[in-house]
Amino acid sequence: MTQLHAIIPAGGAGTRLWPLSRADHPKFLLPLADPTKSLLQQTVERLAPVAETITVVTGTAHAEAVRSQLADPKVRVVCEPAGRDSMAAIGFASELIRAEFGDDAVVGSFAADHIVRNSDGLRDHIRTAIRVADKGFITTLGITPTAPSTAFGYIRPGKSLGTAVAQVDEFVEKPDVQRAEEFVGSGYLWNAGMFIMRAKSLADALGRYQPDLACRLPALAADWNDLSEVDRAQRWGELTAIAFDYAVAEPAARDGLVAVVATARDIGWSDLGDFDSLCQVPTHAYQVPPALTVHATGATVFGGDTTPIVAVVGIDDCVVVHTDDAILITTRENAQQVKKVPELLGKMGLDELS
Amino acid sequence: MTQLHAIIPAGGAGTRLWPLSRADHPKFLLPLADPTKSLLQQTVERLAPVAETITVVTGTAHAEAVRSQLADPKVRVVCEPAGRDSMAAIGFASELIRAEFGDDAVVGSFAADHIVRNSDGLRDHIRTAIRVADKGFITTLGITPTAPSTAFGYIRPGKSLGTAVAQVDEFVEKPDVQRAEEFVGSGYLWNAGMFIMRAKSLADALGRYQPDLACRLPALAADWNDLSEVDRAQRWGELTAIAFDYAVAEPAARDGLVAVVATARDIGWSDLGDFDSLCQVPTHAYQVPPALTVHATGATVFGGDTTPIVAVVGIDDCVVVHTDDAILITTRENAQQVKKVPELLGKMGLDELS
Repeated sequence: MTQLHAIIPAGGAGTRLWPLSRADHPKFLLPLADPTKSLLQQTVERLAPVAETITVVTGTAHAEAVRSQLADPKVRVVCEPAGRDSMAAIGFASELIRAEFGDDAVVGSFAADHIVRNSDGLRDHIRTAIRVADKGFITTLGITPTAPSTAFGYIRPGKSLGTAVAQVDEFVEKPDVQRAEEFVGSGYLWNAGMFIMRAKSLADALGRYQPDLACRLPALAADWNDLSEVDRAQRWGELTAIAFDYAVAEPAARDGLVAVVATARDIGWSDLGDFDSLCQVPTHAYQVPPALTVHATGATVFGGDTTPIVAVVGIDDCVVVHTDDAILITTRENAQQVKKVPELLGKMGLDELS
Repeated sequence: MTQLHAIIPAGGAGTRLWPLSRADHPKFLLPLADPTKSLLQQTVERLAPVAETITVVTGTAHAEAVRSQLADPKVRVVCEPAGRDSMAAIGFASELIRAEFGDDAVVGSFAADHIVRNSDGLRDHIRTAIRVADKGFITTLGITPTAPSTAFGYIRPGKSLGTAVAQVDEFVEKPDVQRAEEFVGSGYLWNAGMFIMRAKSLADALGRYQPDLACRLPALAADWNDLSEVDRAQRWGELTAIAFDYAVAEPAARDGLVAVVATARDIGWSDLGDFDSLCQVPTHAYQVPPALTVHATGATVFGGDTTPIVAVVGIDDCVVVHTDDAILITTRENAQQVKKVPELLGKMGLDELS
């Protein structure tokens, strides 16, 4: 059967996981779901059995760390001169793959910093998605919701294309609680940012919706190995900075070009987006003795070898994160707001802490 | 005029100020209201201008630290072999003073770990109290309340004995909020544990209410210098363990033997009983840069040289205390409950942290 060429854009900072995640050691490099492996390493391990090649696109600052974490000979690391959002990273990698493996090569884009407990199940869904992609669809994996979350975008499935496969009617932005409940009741799925399609399908969609990128990306891919650092940086800087969802997924869904494969409910996907979701992960490298609690339920402490004993008095669902140069104190309910701390630190000129 | 012989029982652990205050460096030894002086040093400085002698009664474990903090030649440090509550400590010191200075010597007992911003005002009130004590009353300083606090016991004044001086009708235990409001509205005063009286008045009161102590204390004071450590410990262990308030102040008030001098409202007294009251103290040795706050008001951090930056997200009035071996997280509202943490640590066998 058709093999997959996986693309992993590794660019996000994970600011909602400050102070564990920092600009200089971002979330995907951290051992957040396994004490011995980073999220990126787990992502590569999860995809390797279904992928012929794996292309990681990352920033100059992290290229060395990424290379040192990934020994798999299937893995190629592409260093983007500057962040131009996910469409540039995915589209460029897809053009490199198309140049090498041809129009019918199937590419798949996966986040570098999510987890999936049931890897076998995920790979089964990916194999289904490859078959759908072979027919020409831009194919996404839609996560069957386990709760009416307001933290994710949703996918509205339309006409059935087979068992657990449907056309996508619409991608919907993060809802409020009431709409999230309606969505879950109506069979909507979570958008986890996993897209699988023929390299040619992606190039065609770009031709329709982002003609400038459609023109520049294949040319840049063809020239890449012969360009100086300066020329790479200049031509990369000319690329439109836009997210894959806005550039391709949303307009293509409106034109009936997108399909979704619904995952099993127990696939165990999490974006580990904030400390609330990290509190549900049983193993990670930041485990320390639990907090002493007085008139307080559910305190969770993330720390390291130098973390002293922590006592929480009178605050329910408290989250304490201790590193050598910063301490965060919040509650699971407020975990989404943590991203404002590194923003504040940046404004205060304390970039080394952000 | 009659001089005062001050007695400072220095025994309490200050468990509501854990982890700053510990069994092995208790609250009175800490620089909680002045970065360069402990509360005990401030207490001695405050009393020295009105005191002919100052007797500090402290436990074996803290005697050396107390002596090293107090260079004033007026100060004598008495080492109690074991804690037998405040009546034994105050009564014994009073007998030492009576043996040296006679029945008419006026003794005054003051907490080792409270603060009074207006020291001149306090000393004026003490001079008034000495005059009332000369007439035979067991005289207390009653703090004019600044709020309907539930953290203190109250004094109900009765018949006037002069300007701002009255007989005490009753000592009342810590009330709930509603009763505290009634008390403040009815002119009740806070009981700050300051008692001034002739040494003979105290001996007579003990004769009435605690005859066993009245018998043992003068004998022990007479023999003290000739006793071995072992004999001191044995005879000290025979003393009834009871608080001064229960042993003398309450029954003597019922018999009309207690007077109260009401302080000015702006005397600035605080027992620094918990982190809520410590948050109101502008200078102490635990000052660190303020917390970064996101969706949170009034965060306060106590720390030291090794305290990293602290960020608080979504918790109002958060109190964070950072030491090298422990971190406490609470809110001002929950500050009273902190005492349960060292209790818990003790039960867990972690005495070195409690």
